[in-house]
Amino acid sequence: MFKLLHKDSSSKARLGKLVTAHGEINTPVFMVVGTQGTVKAISNEELKANDVEIILGNAYHLYLRPGLDIIKKAGGLHKFMGWDGPILTDSGGYQVFSLAVLRKLSEEGAEFSSHIDGSKHFITPEKVIDIQMALGSDIMMMFDECVHYPAAKDYVEQSLGLTTRWARRSKEYYERVQGPGSGVRGKKLLFGIVQGSTYLDLRKRAVEDLVNIGFDGYAIGGVSVGEPGNLIHEIAGYSAALLPDDQARYLMGVGTPPDILNAMGEGVDMFDCVIPTRNGRNGQAFTWNGELQLRNAEFKEDLRPIDPDCRCYACRNHTRAYIRHLFNTQEILGLRLVSLHNIHFYVKLIQHSRKAIQENCFAKFKDDFMKKYKKEPI
Amino acid sequence: MFKLLHKDSSSKARLGKLVTAHGEINTPVFMVVGTQGTVKAISNEELKANDVEIILGNAYHLYLRPGLDIIKKAGGLHKFMGWDGPILTDSGGYQVFSLAVLRKLSEEGAEFSSHIDGSKHFITPEKVIDIQMALGSDIMMMFDECVHYPAAKDYVEQSLGLTTRWARRSKEYYERVQGPGSGVRGKKLLFGIVQGSTYLDLRKRAVEDLVNIGFDGYAIGGVSVGEPGNLIHEIAGYSAALLPDDQARYLMGVGTPPDILNAMGEGVDMFDCVIPTRNGRNGQAFTWNGELQLRNAEFKEDLRPIDPDCRCYACRNHTRAYIRHLFNTQEILGLRLVSLHNIHFYVKLIQHSRKAIQENCFAKFKDDFMKKYKKEPI
Repeated sequence: MFKLLHKDSSSKARLGKLVTAHGEINTPVFMVVGTQGTVKAISNEELKANDVEIILGNAYHLYLRPGLDIIKKAGGLHKFMGWDGPILTDSGGYQVFSLAVLRKLSEEGAEFSSHIDGSKHFITPEKVIDIQMALGSDIMMMFDECVHYPAAKDYVEQSLGLTTRWARRSKEYYERVQGPGSGVRGKKLLFGIVQGSTYLDLRKRAVEDLVNIGFDGYAIGGVSVGEPGNLIHEIAGYSAALLPDDQARYLMGVGTPPDILNAMGEGVDMFDCVIPTRNGRNGQAFTWNGELQLRNAEFKEDLRPIDPDCRCYACRNHTRAYIRHLFNTQEILGLRLVSLHNIHFYVKLIQHSRKAIQENCFAKFKDDFMKKYKKEPI
Repeated sequence: MFKLLHKDSSSKARLGKLVTAHGEINTPVFMVVGTQGTVKAISNEELKANDVEIILGNAYHLYLRPGLDIIKKAGGLHKFMGWDGPILTDSGGYQVFSLAVLRKLSEEGAEFSSHIDGSKHFITPEKVIDIQMALGSDIMMMFDECVHYPAAKDYVEQSLGLTTRWARRSKEYYERVQGPGSGVRGKKLLFGIVQGSTYLDLRKRAVEDLVNIGFDGYAIGGVSVGEPGNLIHEIAGYSAALLPDDQARYLMGVGTPPDILNAMGEGVDMFDCVIPTRNGRNGQAFTWNGELQLRNAEFKEDLRPIDPDCRCYACRNHTRAYIRHLFNTQEILGLRLVSLHNIHFYVKLIQHSRKAIQENCFAKFKDDFMKKYKKEPI
């Protein structure tokens, strides 16, 4: 269940709370990605110490490895991975249409070959609910067809029709296995996904159809799939404005700090992205002044922390020169430190944003951030 | 300075204290290997939380990368890597004769090409002291020629002559740069290295010559370089018995838990080995009942911790099945958890050994351990 707590008077940004079976989440929220049952290179203890409120798992990956039998035997994904906070699981729609080899797409569902061993699998909207129920996900995502950019309008329209019919089947099946009503603590939540690629009229139709079916929250999907950054912003803003005020809005797979602040200013509540961890593993650190590529030679003798004002473990204990040395010598501690710093930064970015929304000055906060934030190494 | 505190009445095992510029170390001690300025995949915070008292750095590796300039600029290796406990640095003798391409070995020193970029370097016993002084090492090792197994006796004898002359030069140079006397808190310690391969008469000669020169402690080197396990035990025991009672004895690069207990029972005080971390990164865990290969299929649905009695972070929070899944999916958290567990186990092995020595029952403690310890997966 989502509670809208406050609307910023300087933008469309909002404060809210999402109640899940594993506790409440404050929104806006950034959800750290833990695709295969672990946030890459980071321990649960470190996530807690850095105020991470909710993590993401992926139904497609976990269904293939380690498989549902062992996760069920462990008592669900929370127990299997030792994380007692909320978990949102992505349905695997994106992976079936990108990572796997799609064999056959039909009204019933999608047949694909695993990207790991080529084994064949048939996934339906109902099966995806079953998988996520078995995982014990707190927030389940419906199974959708995720269309990449660019796509012709007639293809997108046809695909959206299928996704909408899958949305209806998802909701019906969810009600059968979960019982009617939703949002009560202890119940798993089901989110619908707005598709429609870059066609705003199709996005509008998607929103209307999904809201008509009724979900616990609404994701804006099929963005950050190859389209230019300004389109992400346009689609997110347009879709968010159409969605119900009293429900959570989740922009999937976004993004960089500026992308997140832009979408937050349009009223988006939830975000997830691999950027803080994936880029961290490649030596890219995020700061309030912009991005640093710590492998660069310029940091060879730089004895400052990544960010002198940051209080994360990496910045309290280590220098840019040391971290550069760790990357230079392929030492795992290097990618651990930068991943940790980036998670800390993303959490702080969200916490500062919440404060600005509470104080009705999010627009100024965002503008100040954008002015300081440089994409060039600082 | 080394203080011998107690001798076990059931074996030759001893308790002692080694005073270094960065604090006292209890002996017996296991020194965790941090070759390139980091214990692989493990943070300093984790080392402290697991009661690690001293770590090892490597002069050869650190001299090549990141180089002495930046380490000096940072204020030494302790500050560069953020570790405020004692550090022993290996001289690089082993690496020059194994990892690098040796170009020319002369009375003066060794010319070699870097294993990283092929760059040529010339190392002498004096230069190795300079490097370790620049690193700010608490315990420096002399530069020696490390002979691999098997080696003909006349070659070993000739090599030992060179190592002994290098030992004398090391001591003389050390006294010049450090000032005479040693062992006082605040001063760096210099250890000699006993070579002689598997020839006991040469080991005896090496000990006599080194003791005659006089060092702050004595390492037994050139073991665990390819010879059978029983030879390690024989050489370590024979050499330890010849060394002065009131000085620390360090068995370099050893070893498995049984190897360590065997040598401890012969009066060895200090150990180092990559096994807990290297094997941990490959999924091999050490327990009081033996070794487990956690990647094995048998652990797929095993919901027990690595060791149900262990209190390390991995065992308090995660199952064998989960860790196996992490290895199976190449997730870094897996090798972090097993490395951490193994370090914890090695520290506990030492702590329990110390208690048994204090209580004059080390022989029984060792026998009980050996009976329970299985090398086959349990």
